[in-house]
Amino acid sequence: MRIGLDMMGGDFAPLEAVKGVKLFLANGAADVHLVLIGDEQAVQPLLADARIDPSNYTLIHASQVIGMHEHPTKALKEKQQSSIAIGFHLLQSGKIDAFISAGNTGAMMVGTFYSIKAIEGVQRPTISTPIPREDGSYGLLLDVGINADCKPENLVQFAVLGSLYAKYILRRDNPTVGLLNIGEEEGKGNLLAQATYPLLKEHPLLNFVGNVEGRDIFDPRADVIVCEGFTGNVVLKMAESFHDIAVRRNIKDEYLEQFDFESYGGTPVLGVSHPVIIGHGISKGIAFKNMIVLAQQMIASKLPDHIRESFVKQ
Amino acid sequence: MRIGLDMMGGDFAPLEAVKGVKLFLANGAADVHLVLIGDEQAVQPLLADARIDPSNYTLIHASQVIGMHEHPTKALKEKQQSSIAIGFHLLQSGKIDAFISAGNTGAMMVGTFYSIKAIEGVQRPTISTPIPREDGSYGLLLDVGINADCKPENLVQFAVLGSLYAKYILRRDNPTVGLLNIGEEEGKGNLLAQATYPLLKEHPLLNFVGNVEGRDIFDPRADVIVCEGFTGNVVLKMAESFHDIAVRRNIKDEYLEQFDFESYGGTPVLGVSHPVIIGHGISKGIAFKNMIVLAQQMIASKLPDHIRESFVKQ
Repeated sequence: MRIGLDMMGGDFAPLEAVKGVKLFLANGAADVHLVLIGDEQAVQPLLADARIDPSNYTLIHASQVIGMHEHPTKALKEKQQSSIAIGFHLLQSGKIDAFISAGNTGAMMVGTFYSIKAIEGVQRPTISTPIPREDGSYGLLLDVGINADCKPENLVQFAVLGSLYAKYILRRDNPTVGLLNIGEEEGKGNLLAQATYPLLKEHPLLNFVGNVEGRDIFDPRADVIVCEGFTGNVVLKMAESFHDIAVRRNIKDEYLEQFDFESYGGTPVLGVSHPVIIGHGISKGIAFKNMIVLAQQMIASKLPDHIRESFVKQ
Repeated sequence: MRIGLDMMGGDFAPLEAVKGVKLFLANGAADVHLVLIGDEQAVQPLLADARIDPSNYTLIHASQVIGMHEHPTKALKEKQQSSIAIGFHLLQSGKIDAFISAGNTGAMMVGTFYSIKAIEGVQRPTISTPIPREDGSYGLLLDVGINADCKPENLVQFAVLGSLYAKYILRRDNPTVGLLNIGEEEGKGNLLAQATYPLLKEHPLLNFVGNVEGRDIFDPRADVIVCEGFTGNVVLKMAESFHDIAVRRNIKDEYLEQFDFESYGGTPVLGVSHPVIIGHGISKGIAFKNMIVLAQQMIASKLPDHIRESFVKQ
């Protein structure tokens, strides 16, 4: 498999991207060939310094970079030689099997939606976050920000996409699904939650366990928690702030350390035809490595194919 | 001033309510006369045991109790001799100046809306939560659950109500107001947040400082943070769960201890004609004491009058 990595994306690129490549290759991954996309003059010396075996990668030159604060649509259109534009072109033409970037998030979203597109039947591709739990396992919360206003059927689709991710990537058998809500019983919540509950309950592909309140987010009762992207994004950033508080207050706790969401690398866009992973702008080496591992898992498990099958059935 | 307290409300009533009365009186409060409402036979012996000076209170007998899980409207209608029904009757007829209960939350809401009513011009009374901050101050988040679906003008009113609370109860001069959102700039967010931003920005009574993201909730940049009650309730309960996690993991930190929201006592209903405070079902003595202190502050500061004036002006 060929995994494309934008070497120019993120606040600490290309150095941290190179570190991520080095970390990834250190574990050995004979089936992976990395396609590194970036400014040859900036990247090649770093790869050489890091003594990365050239047989493991192909470096593709990109003469342009999309800055973190550029207008996504405009930048993608005008900078056809940028690492992000080239990455999507390679993905669309089948020359890479997955594309990863910690660059301009908006440009990554626009590129995803306009080049590789949503899987047929998926109304709204979505992004998620892993939720660390005290027993060492991970749950999944989605949507965490790209779908701020949702209809009930969007949340149902997030539940299906999240369940497939939980099954094939988190390796959870028959993953449980919860609806983020503000009460325990059916009928509680805002209009969206009230309308979504019965749809989740009746859905043949879902193992729905009912409502999950704010206090239950870190609880193992639901493997997949669905909500619209507004609340999900607030939850994600608030959880991140708890990690920051713990660090600032010098609290040492191995569970709270897992609230360092940046270490997870990035979020895959679920519901699109090929694996795309969008990294945090502040990604460091470990985050880049984790994103490559995730791309590898998504390709190996054929997650997009499983999504395609589930949405054809619906 | 006369403060009414439901002695039968909450999981640990009446004993913890009596403890709260004792704690409150221990600090001396010459201007407060407590009107205790409950089953005389259950409450009187506890008051005697606690050696509470009878000159500080009047005990009003209530022969009925509304259970924590009874249907609010039905229970209030059918149990006219319940402590909650009597409390609202006393408040409505001016025999008490504030009413506090840790009993059935739904019955407290119904009683509030149908007996004492909203202040003219207030479309949706609201409930809030104090937000502890690392510098020792408190912010205010509202709504936290009774208004799950909101229009932009509701959020603007919450901002006005919250600002008045911050000014008169938290004693903050010219309190800052933030809009809970999922991006920093104007134009970000869901449809509600996008439509609310310009209204907050233009409002003559508000010191609006822009969007506040999930990671900024515990940050002192906004004294008052507004959102609809769905997200607010998720945030509140999630913050409570962090306290539970810290306790469970034996993390000792004085800031995280302040995430014990139960210790604050309860939430005042803002925007109604008289102070009403709704306590947590699991309120203990310290929570009851804190609720009495809050009622005293709300009466002494004439908060409802200030709200009335602000809403007449609008």
